[in-house]
Amino acid sequence: MIEPVVLKGFRDSLPKDEIPKKKIIRKLEDVFTSFGFSPIDTPVLEYTDVLLGKGGGETDKQIFRFKDNGGRDVAMRFDLTVPFARFMAAHHSEVGVPFKRYHISKVWRGENPQKGRYREFIQCDFDIVGADNTLSDVEILSMMHTSFAALGIERYTFHISHRGLFSLFLASIGIEDKSIEVLRTVDKLRKIGEDEVRKLLTEITGDEGKANAVISYITAGDGKDFMATLETLEELSGGKSEPSSRMREIYNVLTQLGIEKSFTFDPSITRGLDYYTGIVYETFLDDLPSIGSVCSGGRYNDLASLYMKEKTPGVGSSIGLDRLLAALEELQSPLLKDTAEADIMIVPQSGKEGEALKTASMLRQRGLNVSMYLIPDAKMKKIYAAAETAKVPYLLTFGESSFTVKNLNTRESMEGEEAINQILKEREN
Amino acid sequence: MIEPVVLKGFRDSLPKDEIPKKKIIRKLEDVFTSFGFSPIDTPVLEYTDVLLGKGGGETDKQIFRFKDNGGRDVAMRFDLTVPFARFMAAHHSEVGVPFKRYHISKVWRGENPQKGRYREFIQCDFDIVGADNTLSDVEILSMMHTSFAALGIERYTFHISHRGLFSLFLASIGIEDKSIEVLRTVDKLRKIGEDEVRKLLTEITGDEGKANAVISYITAGDGKDFMATLETLEELSGGKSEPSSRMREIYNVLTQLGIEKSFTFDPSITRGLDYYTGIVYETFLDDLPSIGSVCSGGRYNDLASLYMKEKTPGVGSSIGLDRLLAALEELQSPLLKDTAEADIMIVPQSGKEGEALKTASMLRQRGLNVSMYLIPDAKMKKIYAAAETAKVPYLLTFGESSFTVKNLNTRESMEGEEAINQILKEREN
Repeated sequence: MIEPVVLKGFRDSLPKDEIPKKKIIRKLEDVFTSFGFSPIDTPVLEYTDVLLGKGGGETDKQIFRFKDNGGRDVAMRFDLTVPFARFMAAHHSEVGVPFKRYHISKVWRGENPQKGRYREFIQCDFDIVGADNTLSDVEILSMMHTSFAALGIERYTFHISHRGLFSLFLASIGIEDKSIEVLRTVDKLRKIGEDEVRKLLTEITGDEGKANAVISYITAGDGKDFMATLETLEELSGGKSEPSSRMREIYNVLTQLGIEKSFTFDPSITRGLDYYTGIVYETFLDDLPSIGSVCSGGRYNDLASLYMKEKTPGVGSSIGLDRLLAALEELQSPLLKDTAEADIMIVPQSGKEGEALKTASMLRQRGLNVSMYLIPDAKMKKIYAAAETAKVPYLLTFGESSFTVKNLNTRESMEGEEAINQILKEREN
Repeated sequence: MIEPVVLKGFRDSLPKDEIPKKKIIRKLEDVFTSFGFSPIDTPVLEYTDVLLGKGGGETDKQIFRFKDNGGRDVAMRFDLTVPFARFMAAHHSEVGVPFKRYHISKVWRGENPQKGRYREFIQCDFDIVGADNTLSDVEILSMMHTSFAALGIERYTFHISHRGLFSLFLASIGIEDKSIEVLRTVDKLRKIGEDEVRKLLTEITGDEGKANAVISYITAGDGKDFMATLETLEELSGGKSEPSSRMREIYNVLTQLGIEKSFTFDPSITRGLDYYTGIVYETFLDDLPSIGSVCSGGRYNDLASLYMKEKTPGVGSSIGLDRLLAALEELQSPLLKDTAEADIMIVPQSGKEGEALKTASMLRQRGLNVSMYLIPDAKMKKIYAAAETAKVPYLLTFGESSFTVKNLNTRESMEGEEAINQILKEREN
């Protein structure tokens, strides 16, 4: 006998988890489609050097990498960004630019599993490539806003900043050459706190004054509204600039759309990765900030430089679906509660299978999801237990000439057609 | 520069392929849900000995197998049946039986890629476990029927047979001990033809008479209707039996459901795999039989015997989604033609981004999928090309006080509200 175990950091998804996950993915897909974003897919396995590029460091150790039967050095994708870059290089003339794609799929990282972190998880990425302007920046932000609304999440804030503005500031105090280390340090603010960041920045810059200046910059948004923060940062970074006008334009358009209240200018958002060049953003749930950002991204200068000469600037965002699901669960979201496997369960009788199946088919044609209890003449106790496990609210049993439907919550019963009309009416509400 | 290539046997999915694929998957999911089948998911990577069990032979060589960073012997799943067996052993008390699940996901096999065969492909499996009766047999068959109807496929035939009946026949001519080899040989009938099968059967049984008897059995359905075939096979297998009554019951219930015409009794269907014990079936498209079966399966005595003591009899089916897609493409199915990335494309003007985005948002609220051309003031030639690539039928441009919508097929233009009402009306039809 083999023990039916899964690998460390991996897990099965049971109907109670898979049903809401699929509903959420559908809602997101519907939003993306309504914005004219197209789905793509790429292979799970790729040549290792295609996935790692010149990269290396941390990612190297974390990937599932091996030699296939043909001796090729291959690896499982660890994100959806690198495969998208490779995809754009391979297909840019077929798909044309600007190109808007989404990709919802699994990725794998061999990192040590912690609470809420797994070695196999779902990413949900959406990007616009081939356009560098306010319009596409706002398009992505507005799509994030629409997505959260579609998921019924009400209390959240998009924290937005501009990497170019921060670079101007770093240049103005003469530490632009340390920018990568500074960015990575600032990115840890939420995790390690202001004092620790100040200490690290002092080590990096060798100058406590400069460390304090950076702290002033990244905390300049505290308690201030968007435009006031922008004006302060404009001053700190040496006056009006292309990045500051872009931020002003973005805010104006968000205001015209009437969604500006969901956005806060938070200069501590830098994103650790050094490929961002314009806006960067993270999303926090007001009632569960500790879970971290559930939707992050930004503008990059060039997506596919590893694979092609043409520049493909873009702006994109990524929803950590598993983290979002964990958050929704903790927040007891109604989205996760609707895990009924069907609207009604049919109790069949031996020798009358045809009648049961025909009734099921008739109810399906009227729009109901119908689960047949697949053992005729079973004990009612077993059937009730099955209905409860599957969270099915109604039970249909056959009588002499008609059928009876019992509401398992109220214990009320109704006959034939009347019962079906009642269920259909309830579903409409 | 790294060349943006994918591995042999793997491929990217562009919007023109991914859009119809997603539509088909949704339609299937809707059918499965309407039958009260629940989605599950399992890890892509598992312990190799969990996946291979006592198995071996062909499968061994074909899997992607490696040592992970922790030294574990792991492999990528090569089907969805083995992980489901492991899943049932691990979770049978949580999910309860009878349990009905579906699972649509990728699997990987390292076999040599041929036309239409890839190393990464999508399986679509649905099974009922925990019930061995006519009711569940017909439930699966009826779900196959409903699925094909939902996909708008009209000309197809389910070829059905009964493995138990064939075993009785083999016993009646005294070659039950050769049954595995006979089954595998008969399974090749469509590929290698009757004469070759006869030759192989003679080798296996050492008796041309017995080989001829097998040929008579497997061709007994030719030109006959379901019941006539059943009666012939009943005679050939030694008279009435449990398998033959099951087949009679199944046919009766299919007739009550009014779907019996889609089923033909084809005793040459045996399925090569030796775990089938009851009904077995394959599905051929009448206009493209050469592509092979697009939906196959059958009844098995025990799903999870490798991992648990409890017996879990079941019946299931698997749609080869990539093969079905290839067939639909060859048959020029209308399902694949609807690859428009949006209903309408908006042409924005510089300085008026807010107006463009607000209009897009308004149209989305009215149910349209709206693609923003993300470069303001672009040349109309470029915009027309983009609309063509994305198969978007309408273009919206802004005038002084309103907007104009152009139908890109008829070249007609309409103004503002009138245009939108027209598009919405067309969509309804």
